[in-house]
Amino acid sequence: MALKRIGAQTVKLSNPPSIISTASIVGPKEGEGPLKDYFDIILEDDMWGQESFEKSEAKIQEEAIKLAISNANLSPNDIEYLFAGDLLNQIITSSYSARQLNIPFFGLYGACSTMTESLSLGAMIIDGQFADKVVCATSSHFSSAERQFRFPLEYGSQRTFSAQWTVTGGGATVLSSTGNGPYITYITTGKIVDLGIVDVNNMGGAMAPAAIDTISQHFKDTGYNPVDYDLIITGDLGLVGKKIILDLLRKEGYDLSENYSDCGIKIFDGVEQDTHAGGSGCGCAAVVFNGYIYKEMMKRNLNRVLLIATGALHSSISTLQGESIPGIAHAVTIDNMIS
Amino acid sequence: MALKRIGAQTVKLSNPPSIISTASIVGPKEGEGPLKDYFDIILEDDMWGQESFEKSEAKIQEEAIKLAISNANLSPNDIEYLFAGDLLNQIITSSYSARQLNIPFFGLYGACSTMTESLSLGAMIIDGQFADKVVCATSSHFSSAERQFRFPLEYGSQRTFSAQWTVTGGGATVLSSTGNGPYITYITTGKIVDLGIVDVNNMGGAMAPAAIDTISQHFKDTGYNPVDYDLIITGDLGLVGKKIILDLLRKEGYDLSENYSDCGIKIFDGVEQDTHAGGSGCGCAAVVFNGYIYKEMMKRNLNRVLLIATGALHSSISTLQGESIPGIAHAVTIDNMIS
Repeated sequence: MALKRIGAQTVKLSNPPSIISTASIVGPKEGEGPLKDYFDIILEDDMWGQESFEKSEAKIQEEAIKLAISNANLSPNDIEYLFAGDLLNQIITSSYSARQLNIPFFGLYGACSTMTESLSLGAMIIDGQFADKVVCATSSHFSSAERQFRFPLEYGSQRTFSAQWTVTGGGATVLSSTGNGPYITYITTGKIVDLGIVDVNNMGGAMAPAAIDTISQHFKDTGYNPVDYDLIITGDLGLVGKKIILDLLRKEGYDLSENYSDCGIKIFDGVEQDTHAGGSGCGCAAVVFNGYIYKEMMKRNLNRVLLIATGALHSSISTLQGESIPGIAHAVTIDNMIS
Repeated sequence: MALKRIGAQTVKLSNPPSIISTASIVGPKEGEGPLKDYFDIILEDDMWGQESFEKSEAKIQEEAIKLAISNANLSPNDIEYLFAGDLLNQIITSSYSARQLNIPFFGLYGACSTMTESLSLGAMIIDGQFADKVVCATSSHFSSAERQFRFPLEYGSQRTFSAQWTVTGGGATVLSSTGNGPYITYITTGKIVDLGIVDVNNMGGAMAPAAIDTISQHFKDTGYNPVDYDLIITGDLGLVGKKIILDLLRKEGYDLSENYSDCGIKIFDGVEQDTHAGGSGCGCAAVVFNGYIYKEMMKRNLNRVLLIATGALHSSISTLQGESIPGIAHAVTIDNMIS
């Protein structure tokens, strides 16, 4: 059997799965940002009638999955696997969301890389002929993440300028063995990269080396160059990470200055919305991809996109024990056309 | 393209991946139990020279992965993907373990179902022609789990008789597209089942309904009957869960009384070792599978095994918020012969 591998970390899908629908749901702050017209639902209240931030986040993810499925004119019974994860301890958001859906469930943890981790596995499972239809989903919530990873909200802690703002939102993608695109065509799976950063207020800096590693490996494996993409977009590196990406990839011979962006930069107006270095959280890449990128691809304003969601794989315990922050980045190529 | 699916939740692998090596490492208590002769390494000290329980657990998982790879006469560079997860918040065990290995990494969270979640995904990725060799791994540590999920060890809390004892141990499996078996032949992926149990000292009771759901679905999908297996073994349902399994599956027409066991029951002598309802934790199914089951299959004392690792997908936050415990169970068939 011929392997579908090209290069050290990349696979080329033989029958590229099609994205047949998406959904995105965001909180009020995200709904006031530059991408507000791309989201399916903007909440007026980030509690959404629930009694805790955590339960609200689970409802956001569940409703995003249901909406993506109904946008494809399907029901949950038509979906063979759900691939989902989130930031909360023991990914309770995804487990409580999946509990309502009755779909065979693979729980993932990739921190903010979860959107492309789920798309990678979902696309390979379809291309491997194990399923016709899968859903890939993730979410985050500012208030559940802030109190888990940083401080109780009531403290009103001062935030550093390298700090990012966790997105309240959830996104879901329905992948199918048949469809008219956009298609997932290449998958470059990341290794853990940890250059020793211990500052949990500088996630962009901690994750950028992993993104650089995956992006440069993607170019080596595929033979693509930056100009072959309409958009190369990382998950949530923010302003600090963006500068590192552009500088260090240029040193490796890749000029991304014309077509690089970051979901964390796109989602907020950093100055007007006081979000410092930008957005973050699993939900950041999820809603920017399932909202903005997908809809721009459907309008043919973008035709080939490299999405690289990035994760910081630490916990509050590992930070207290003096550990540095392991980063990871998973890349997927999304194409309107397949050759 | 013909799908490799048979029935609602099961796939049949077209070129069943072979298990070409395994490794298991356990703590001192597990090394005094009935399966002591099956483990590759028994630690004299469950800290293993590390400065925290969490760092010890990461070392256990990392060394189990390295040992499995070297047992196959391979190096980490030969492995295309690592599928791993664990119980700790943000699966830091697996991330810190993977950081040392430089292998493209998919982080999973399935609680104590992780061993079969990782085997399921790893086997499908090989059968789908995306990789020749993958490693599937998980671990747990009594002391890191106890203080995260229950109470500080220093409290010396009284334990109920339905409580289980988290296994200190890690296990890893190398799957290959070629080899002489045992082979992964069928995969039945579980849905979340939650019958409303809220008692975190009765995990076996909380997870048993999910195991029943997956096992009976496996028989329906494959046409197998219990007698077709030499051993049907759940992950860590313990004595409470075992009784529920036997009773409820009998009501569904499946008599498992002759060939059913549970990794949590096998690993400890419950009376002598004061482990109450049995062992638990991701490491329980991991070391029983990679130690006992694999070696008994290699000796041809077992030829067809159904392994159903079971997970309780709650967190201490969800428990405090009054949520019940969602359960999940993923089953894999391991066969010495393929037809």
